[in-house]
Formats: sequence, C-alpha cells, structure tokens
Amino acid sequence: MTYAMIGTWRMAYEGLCKGMDLLKTNGKSSDAVEEAIKEVENYPFFKSVGYGGLPNANGLVEMDSAFMNGDTFEVGAVMGISDIKNPISVAKRLSHEHFNSVMVGTGATQYASQNGFERKNMLTDRAKKIWEKRKREIAEKNLSPYDGHDTVGMVSLDQNGSVSVGTSTSGLFMKKPGRTGDSALVGDGFYADSEIGGAAATGLGEDIMKGCLCYEIVRLMGTGLNPQEACDQAVYPFVEKLKKRYGKAGEFSLVALNKEGQWGVATNVEFTFAVGTETKEPKIYIAYPEDGNKTKINPITQEWLDAYEKRIKAPID
Amino acid sequence: MTYAMIGTWRMAYEGLCKGMDLLKTNGKSSDAVEEAIKEVENYPFFKSVGYGGLPNANGLVEMDSAFMNGDTFEVGAVMGISDIKNPISVAKRLSHEHFNSVMVGTGATQYASQNGFERKNMLTDRAKKIWEKRKREIAEKNLSPYDGHDTVGMVSLDQNGSVSVGTSTSGLFMKKPGRTGDSALVGDGFYADSEIGGAAATGLGEDIMKGCLCYEIVRLMGTGLNPQEACDQAVYPFVEKLKKRYGKAGEFSLVALNKEGQWGVATNVEFTFAVGTETKEPKIYIAYPEDGNKTKINPITQEWLDAYEKRIKAPID
Repeated sequence: MTYAMIGTWRMAYEGLCKGMDLLKTNGKSSDAVEEAIKEVENYPFFKSVGYGGLPNANGLVEMDSAFMNGDTFEVGAVMGISDIKNPISVAKRLSHEHFNSVMVGTGATQYASQNGFERKNMLTDRAKKIWEKRKREIAEKNLSPYDGHDTVGMVSLDQNGSVSVGTSTSGLFMKKPGRTGDSALVGDGFYADSEIGGAAATGLGEDIMKGCLCYEIVRLMGTGLNPQEACDQAVYPFVEKLKKRYGKAGEFSLVALNKEGQWGVATNVEFTFAVGTETKEPKIYIAYPEDGNKTKINPITQEWLDAYEKRIKAPID
Repeated sequence: MTYAMIGTWRMAYEGLCKGMDLLKTNGKSSDAVEEAIKEVENYPFFKSVGYGGLPNANGLVEMDSAFMNGDTFEVGAVMGISDIKNPISVAKRLSHEHFNSVMVGTGATQYASQNGFERKNMLTDRAKKIWEKRKREIAEKNLSPYDGHDTVGMVSLDQNGSVSVGTSTSGLFMKKPGRTGDSALVGDGFYADSEIGGAAATGLGEDIMKGCLCYEIVRLMGTGLNPQEACDQAVYPFVEKLKKRYGKAGEFSLVALNKEGQWGVATNVEFTFAVGTETKEPKIYIAYPEDGNKTKINPITQEWLDAYEKRIKAPID
C-alpha cells in the first residue's frame, strides 16, 4: 500500500517532511501526524501555533488541538490549554481514553501537567511585541482585532492503510479568553475514516463549524468522489450558502487525503499547503479559488518563499 | 405554517410545554428553545442539567450548552462554564457574535459574568449528597464512575418556518475537571438548517461525536428522508460501525424534527422524550431500539412516570 501526507500552510512543510520520513520506513500515520505537528508547535516564528503563537486579549497563549485515528474513530482534543509545550501530544494521548477524551480550559492544562507533558511558557518576546503593537494599532486606528487564525492541520496515510488527522493552533488573534474555534471540534475542524480518508480545516473557525466541512468532505469521498472533487463540492457551495443565509463568510481552507494517497484542497483565499506522496517528494503549493467552484493550484515560487521567510522574521517596531 | 417541538428525556416535558405555548402564539423558535431549556436548567431535581446537576470529580458543577439558529447557521456555545444560572442563555447570546462565539472554561464563565448573566452556585445539597455517596460506592465496590450523562436537547420549529436547536448538560457524572462531550460541538450534539430541520443528541458524548450524528441526520432529511428514517439510517449503522471499528459503543439517543413538523428518534437504550405539534398536545413517549435498525415508540405509562417522580426525589442515604 502507498503512503502520503498533506498539511495546511507553508508552515506545515518541515514537519511534513519528518512525517513522510516516518511513513516511508513503515511508521504509523498517527505518529507521523504527531511528529509533524510537534515540529510546527516547536518553531518559534509561526505565530498561530504552539511556541511563538500569539496570545489572547489578556496576553495568555491559549491553544486548541485535536487528534483522530481513522481506524477506530478515536478522538482526543484540548481547547484553551496553556503552558504546555505540545498540545498535539496531549490530544493524541487523550484519544486513547473512552471517557474524558476532550478537555477544556484549566482542566485540560491540569490533565497535561499531571500526566507528565512538558510545561513551557509559550509566549515568546517576539509574540509579545507583535501583540503589544497590535493593541496599539487597534486602539489608534479602530481596526478589527480579529485578522489572523491559521491552524496547522495534517492528514496522513500510512503503508498499513491507516488514516490519521491532527490539528493545532493558538487560535484567532486577540481572541477573548476562553474562545475556541473549529480546530478541536470533530467533523468541523478535522475528520478521518481509514476506509475513506481524512480532512482538516483552517480559517475562521466560527464560520467553518457552521458547515461541518471536514465530515462532509470525508463523506463525499466515501461516495466515490476524489479528494479534489470532494473539497470543491463541500466548500464552495457552503461558502455561497453562508453568504446568502448569514450575510457573510470568513476565510475557509480545507485539505483532504484519501486512502489511495490522492489529495485535494479548496479555499476562498490565497492558501499555501504542503504535500508528499510515495512518488512525489514533499513540496509546497499555493491555491486560489477559481470560477465554477474550482481550485487553482500552483507550485510555490522561490520569490514567495523568500518573502515569507523575511516576513515572519522581520523586526517588530 | 405549522409549529412543533421535540426534546430529549422525560425532563424536557415541562419546558417543552412552555416552548409550545410560545410557538402557538407565533413566538420564535429560538425563544422557545431558550425558554424550554431554562425551565430544565432551573429545576433542581434533574441531576444532569443546570441547577441540581451533578458535579465533576472535584465537586464543581461544570456545564456545557449550545444554541444554533437554523435560518442563519449562527452558533453559540459554552463548555466547562460554572456558577452561571442559565448556560443556554449565554450560548444563545454568543450565537449573535461573529467572533468569539464558542467559549470554554473560566473564559466562558467570565464572559457570562461580565455580560450580566445571573451567577448562582449550581451545586444543591442533594447533588452533593449523591456525589459523596457515589464516591464512597466507587471506592468500595470498584465501580466505573461514568454511568450518567443525560443532556437536554430541544429542536423547535416556529410558524415562520425557523428551526432552532439548543442543548444543556452538566456532563458525564464524575467527569474529570474540564471534560466536555458532544453537547456543545456543532454537528455532533446538535445541528439545524431551517430549509431542512434540526437534530439533537444525548448519551455518551465521547462516542456520539465520532459519528457527527446530528449533522448526518439533518443531511439525510435534506435528501428527502422523513425524520424517523433519517434517525434510523444515521444512528443504527453507525453504532454497528463503532462496535466493529472501536470495539464498543456508548449510549446514543437522537431526536429530530423537520420543517413540516414531523419528528423522529433513534436510540440504542430505553429513551424517553417529549414532543408537541400543532395538532397534538405535548406528550411524553418512550423509545427502544428494534431489530432491523428500527425504533419502537410507545406513549409513556403513568406507572413509569410515578416511578420516575419517586426516583428523582427519593431520599439519599
């Protein structure tokens, strides 16, 4: 059997490469997802996940993370956890519990701490500076505070045919204390069924959850659609429905992988992602919505990557 | 247009009668859901919802609640909220927010407090006694602590064709601090689309969420199935799938209502519920699973009701 992995955003790349190394040597999809997301959580320059993630309105980094095993439907998730180095590892551990497998707030932090997960102050100096600058700008220019919300989501297929999915995020920038999004909600931010495939979401969680989009993508793949068709058919009509019924739609980007190792994405904004398969080395792509409920996908350019690298490391004035 | 309402468990009845009074006089389905659930939250003898709800393993009553407007797909939810009289009202208020509409833990409690929602110590003497007795029994008899988890869920259709759904629970008995279930997860514990109908769940949240069952029921009704067919087809095959893939399945009970005011339920345990329609006064029924993925539904007997009344008010030794 084949193996493959897809992850949301440029930030997924290095972790995905590690995950693919595991899959290549017959590692488990669950381990590949955990290792890949830990890599993203640990990197201090990604400002929406783990260490270096931006804090909530009170200055605390509160994180959401989930893990799902597509063989068994086991789910583990944490919401509003703080001071824990790798939320994805907590979520994965919780997925083994039949009871108390989804935990929120200080209870989640306490569980992680009592079960030996590494504690860490997740606020970097850089994130603190960005947060302070943003607070000034919001006050001075009357801006909406809620302009950033990028989750890392990874879907992985291993050589034994197991599909797993994981997510991790520090959530909506300047969120109110306790706010959570779609990333830890089953079917909304993630879903996996090893007989079909898996999907993960990033974007404005408050709107993504209204459509249960990850469950819907997996369900559509189960009817015989390939991942790209499933993403297109689940996402774009729902964005239109939301505009009509709710008056607006936030940013949505979805990735999916099926049990043959085929993949797809759909997005209503410019969206980068990383993919590796048995026959193609991991690469970063960029996607845009196209007319007719389609998605346009190009390889990323070196120019884009250089500008990104410069941007995430630029001095904060 | 017609109106109707369905709610989970015998405990839904009095609240549902109040909700039906509102619907009869052209009230909104959203208000009917809120009023109905508040009634359940306020009644001290229901030990799994609101005031009188059983506390977590540390002795604190932590509650989950959600609200969804099927016209707009607006969702509001709280998880692990404490010391707030009516979590459903907080969830409904949050549904009007485009950002920060789902809140967990102390952040949720703080939001409610800062926005004028009534604070209340939700632990009754009776609940404390039950909790203490149960702790003794668990220690002495080596019992599983996790044997109770009844959510009140209400789905309502008003004369303008609007469908709303709400849920409220104090969660799994003896849960760990911070544990949450399906009740506040969109698509898992509840879903509504006014062009189709709505659904709500009760049972072991950790397992219900694995199947995204409320979204699936609404989706199936959208393909033309009536609510009973949709419940049967969504729930029973998934229970079997879970037994096969996960090795076991907890208790699941689902209720659904469509935009014609037809209703349905599916359950893998004895399950009571209340329903009212334009032509039938609110009544309590009892449902059981039947062979062939069907549900057997009977009117409740006076004998059952008398025994229930006696049970919920029995002295705690």
